[in-house]
Amino acid sequence: MDFYFDFYSPYAYLASMRIDELAAKHGREVNWYPFLLGPAFKTMGLPPMLETPLIGDYVKVDFARSARLAGVEVRFPEKFPNAALAPARAFYWLNDQNPEQAKALAKAVYHAIFGEGRDGSDPKLLAELAETQGIDSAQLLEVIKTPEVKDRLKQEINRSIERGVCGSPYFIIDGEPFWGNDRLDQVDLWLEKGGW
Amino acid sequence: MDFYFDFYSPYAYLASMRIDELAAKHGREVNWYPFLLGPAFKTMGLPPMLETPLIGDYVKVDFARSARLAGVEVRFPEKFPNAALAPARAFYWLNDQNPEQAKALAKAVYHAIFGEGRDGSDPKLLAELAETQGIDSAQLLEVIKTPEVKDRLKQEINRSIERGVCGSPYFIIDGEPFWGNDRLDQVDLWLEKGGW
Repeated sequence: MDFYFDFYSPYAYLASMRIDELAAKHGREVNWYPFLLGPAFKTMGLPPMLETPLIGDYVKVDFARSARLAGVEVRFPEKFPNAALAPARAFYWLNDQNPEQAKALAKAVYHAIFGEGRDGSDPKLLAELAETQGIDSAQLLEVIKTPEVKDRLKQEINRSIERGVCGSPYFIIDGEPFWGNDRLDQVDLWLEKGGW
Repeated sequence: MDFYFDFYSPYAYLASMRIDELAAKHGREVNWYPFLLGPAFKTMGLPPMLETPLIGDYVKVDFARSARLAGVEVRFPEKFPNAALAPARAFYWLNDQNPEQAKALAKAVYHAIFGEGRDGSDPKLLAELAETQGIDSAQLLEVIKTPEVKDRLKQEINRSIERGVCGSPYFIIDGEPFWGNDRLDQVDLWLEKGGW
């Protein structure tokens, strides 16, 4: 199954903590796909959620409540939302070689952004976290500047739009789409029953 | 607790079938508030959901799946979405005299729209359903044409926006807002624990 997430999506942060374990319960593995919500919102012609009247205020209350219910302490970064290009590019490059390492780094990045309120767009943060994972950070920072790696992320973002990914988190199980952290109960049931 | 719903909101149709029973389990009563999503979407600057790229396609899949999971057979009316002014106006007028009767009529209207695919904007449908509830339909159709009753709905819609109602269904429990049929599990828990 596939898990699409924007590193700056707080609901996907909550989902990222549960999704692998949930899938493993049903003998499934999860392919992680970082993307950027910006192009999806542009395709949909929608303003950023927090800037939207009514919804913006609601989402703040709803997310804080959902995080408390999940027992997750959240600290928002000063600049929010933001585009986490460096870790998204790094992810795909690492993922081609070592998916587990790519996933571990993505989890570390997510924790830095929403667990510690750090700036996920800063390549220095990526380098620091890569080092703690035993990844050569100097090489990683060079690699993510190359056109090939930049293009790879662009392709994945285009593909996300082709696949209908309209928000974050977004899950696709054998072609069936589920949008939102609040769909994880249905995802759980879908994996158990094989659909309904 | 308060339950805001647009008669043309299919997710609120699912919620309308559960909300009274769910609240009663916790010794609570539900005040029903029909409103129209149109003015809320105008306030938010958003296009209708089904006309929005990506989200429109997703919502069709998601709603059908959620309805199947709930065991609810749904038949969409030919004209969808639509503005169910007549039943919303009738609701507030009846509700001032007999809240249980107003609620029963609202449930009958909802079933006609999404259970039978009938036109909820047609005053003839309202009249027919009112008669089956023992309500004088000729009087009802006259009453909903009066400026007082029309204004009452406008006031309730304005109040919904003041209260932050950004979608349908939307629940407010002692000031705490919950948006979406998929928040009913949180609503259940909130009523049980008195918050968290």
